[in-house]
Amino acid sequence: MFCMLAPMQRPLRIGLCGLGNVGSGVAELLVRDSATLAKRAGGPLVLTHVAVRDPQRLREVKLGEVHLGTDAAALAADPDIDILVEVMGGIEPARSLVRMALLRGAHVVTANKELVARHGAELRAAALQGKAGLHLEAAVAGGIPIVKVLSESLTGNRLKALMGIVNGTTNYILTRMTRSGLDFRAALAEAQQLGYAEADPTADVDGHDAASKLAILAGLAFDAEVDAAAVHREGIGGITQGDIAAAADLGHVIKLLAIARPHPTGLELRVGPTMVPADHPLAGVSDAFNAVFVEGDAVGDLMLYGRGAGRLPTASAVLADIVDAAQDIRRGVAGRLLAARRPMRVLPLADVISRYYFSIWVADQPGALGAITTVLGRHGVSVESMIQKGRRQEPIDLVFVTHTARESQVRSALTEIAGLPQVAKIAQVLRVEGPPD
Amino acid sequence: MFCMLAPMQRPLRIGLCGLGNVGSGVAELLVRDSATLAKRAGGPLVLTHVAVRDPQRLREVKLGEVHLGTDAAALAADPDIDILVEVMGGIEPARSLVRMALLRGAHVVTANKELVARHGAELRAAALQGKAGLHLEAAVAGGIPIVKVLSESLTGNRLKALMGIVNGTTNYILTRMTRSGLDFRAALAEAQQLGYAEADPTADVDGHDAASKLAILAGLAFDAEVDAAAVHREGIGGITQGDIAAAADLGHVIKLLAIARPHPTGLELRVGPTMVPADHPLAGVSDAFNAVFVEGDAVGDLMLYGRGAGRLPTASAVLADIVDAAQDIRRGVAGRLLAARRPMRVLPLADVISRYYFSIWVADQPGALGAITTVLGRHGVSVESMIQKGRRQEPIDLVFVTHTARESQVRSALTEIAGLPQVAKIAQVLRVEGPPD
Repeated sequence: MFCMLAPMQRPLRIGLCGLGNVGSGVAELLVRDSATLAKRAGGPLVLTHVAVRDPQRLREVKLGEVHLGTDAAALAADPDIDILVEVMGGIEPARSLVRMALLRGAHVVTANKELVARHGAELRAAALQGKAGLHLEAAVAGGIPIVKVLSESLTGNRLKALMGIVNGTTNYILTRMTRSGLDFRAALAEAQQLGYAEADPTADVDGHDAASKLAILAGLAFDAEVDAAAVHREGIGGITQGDIAAAADLGHVIKLLAIARPHPTGLELRVGPTMVPADHPLAGVSDAFNAVFVEGDAVGDLMLYGRGAGRLPTASAVLADIVDAAQDIRRGVAGRLLAARRPMRVLPLADVISRYYFSIWVADQPGALGAITTVLGRHGVSVESMIQKGRRQEPIDLVFVTHTARESQVRSALTEIAGLPQVAKIAQVLRVEGPPD
Repeated sequence: MFCMLAPMQRPLRIGLCGLGNVGSGVAELLVRDSATLAKRAGGPLVLTHVAVRDPQRLREVKLGEVHLGTDAAALAADPDIDILVEVMGGIEPARSLVRMALLRGAHVVTANKELVARHGAELRAAALQGKAGLHLEAAVAGGIPIVKVLSESLTGNRLKALMGIVNGTTNYILTRMTRSGLDFRAALAEAQQLGYAEADPTADVDGHDAASKLAILAGLAFDAEVDAAAVHREGIGGITQGDIAAAADLGHVIKLLAIARPHPTGLELRVGPTMVPADHPLAGVSDAFNAVFVEGDAVGDLMLYGRGAGRLPTASAVLADIVDAAQDIRRGVAGRLLAARRPMRVLPLADVISRYYFSIWVADQPGALGAITTVLGRHGVSVESMIQKGRRQEPIDLVFVTHTARESQVRSALTEIAGLPQVAKIAQVLRVEGPPD
């Protein structure tokens, strides 16, 4: 927080590429709150140009005196546009436009998660070359200001872990499965009906969306070059009511967590359904809400909770970035000085250390438990608790939670257990997070 | 988030006033993380001077080559000090020092809640006059970056409400009362033993600390000049196990909330024990943790959760401000342009609209309930639910929750109810917050 009032200066001109869900929200807020925004930005912000694919399409948003056209590239190149806002989505033409605007020294605000996750390094280099400002709060976690908090508020910390619920669709589905006993298919169908899930839900349900967000967040948290393709990824399609019930028996809930943890040998980076203690702050994040929880060596536990998607929450983040860009332009400086990033090895999944939950279906033979625990012991996997689910019918479900163990040891133990004559099936394997400090 | 790398420049010199709990944490992090901080600040940050009251006192923190003296005023005036960090606490001499440094155009980082709450307007004016930077993230809510989020991330929002759990001591006491059935005295004694509460707990328990924090937060949230003395304030000393149990029966928990809400006729500003629905994100904030929940018209519900006090969490906030100040100095600009503040009328408590909880002790007479509800109805106070606590002994406890009503009507109804022959005592009156959107 700083303090200086400047005299009102010339209006800053904003070019908006894309007028879909988020773009129309941005346009609406820029027009509606122009007086307040001018106060907070040190002078007027004027939306002068909007580029859309089809200018004939009827739109509800009132744009005022705006030049509505189709040539987004012209906006990116126009030296009269002070701030270019890219809310088109997709890789091209967004990538070329943003790059062009940065190279000419403009401030660019983008809400494009795929673009930042896949081409962030290229865009940062273009911003550096053009002495430009690249603002990407809206590209991850919607209205939650996690980009600013990671890059500006936690600079005095070494982060020990970052754990996020960063996909609203899967969090809605898991919440419905937990609270209302729906199975995965029914909860997904409901999410689709409500517009929380796409007709093809793969990107959400299989964790691709969360992996892209994790790559962006981990890059910021650890000053690292992170490739979204290197994130280990598991979806929630295999979670059953049996798992939900077992988690509850164990005092846990199941959440799709995106986790980044630095280790001496590399960066742990994974997305997957994970058991979280019921009294962990992340456990209470319900429905389509998102949250990012970080453990810093100075700040301790810190969590940001809010709407990770949606028209106006994302527009809120875009507006914050526009005002930040305006502050820099008014004060006559380029963007904030950014720490250099280093390449970081991604920890192989085999080297991840975690607690584990297994559900193993066995024939009702007295020797089953002994055989399984013998194998676990031989692989150095220590059992913390075991529940034999009280079902009369075969197969019986043995639920284990282990102490911390190395994934490679757990996997080799499970391979051997799957071959035991008493074992019908390894029905589920999930990682289990501990309680917060 | 911006992007530009600057060549390494001259080291920036930091003068630290105060080497107590927070000050020693700041010194420790500055020395330990100097390499990372230099990267993030665009160049070295060097702690060159420390002013303390008693330089002979043995200190555990390793300061390196630092000039340790007693003359804090000399540091504030020294043009070679780029960033003055004030962590002495108290009003004087902190107020004069900070003012002096701002008037000479220095960047000042302060963790001094009382100073900012009581003399914020004066300090902002000094910063404006000196074209200086005033950084106060650490002055409120410790490691939670709520100052930056309110002033920078939510600029595109009209805030509808801000509700905070901003005092760790009272939250610890209420958590212990709720979870372990301790009464107020026992929970307070435990908090004192653990160092969460002072020997004289008045500032925490009576809500003074929370009121100061609310004044700072509301000022930021609503661009308002807010006087901490104008905050309506009630403490938690009167909360009983009966109230805790009644809240649980009603699906609520009791929290000391600091609430700011803008109304057409003024700003509602109050601190007091409040019932919160058990599924509200604030309800899960336990022990000494703090959280600030805001409702923005664009962002929707947003909550920040973390450690609101303590040596390293507060030092984390100081470090973020130091890096922000360094970024501005490196880029050759004064502080961020700040929106002008306007005086706002504080809504009289009588005009507050809320739901209410009453506990009324009555003699076991059939006419009691009828008499009470008749009075409530006559004053326009509508009952949402009523529970007659199943005790055999007299007096019987009638617990009411009302629909929203005006405080003045509630108070006049309660005055009349207290005079009814069947009523022994109005044992408790609390406000009740609704569920989130």
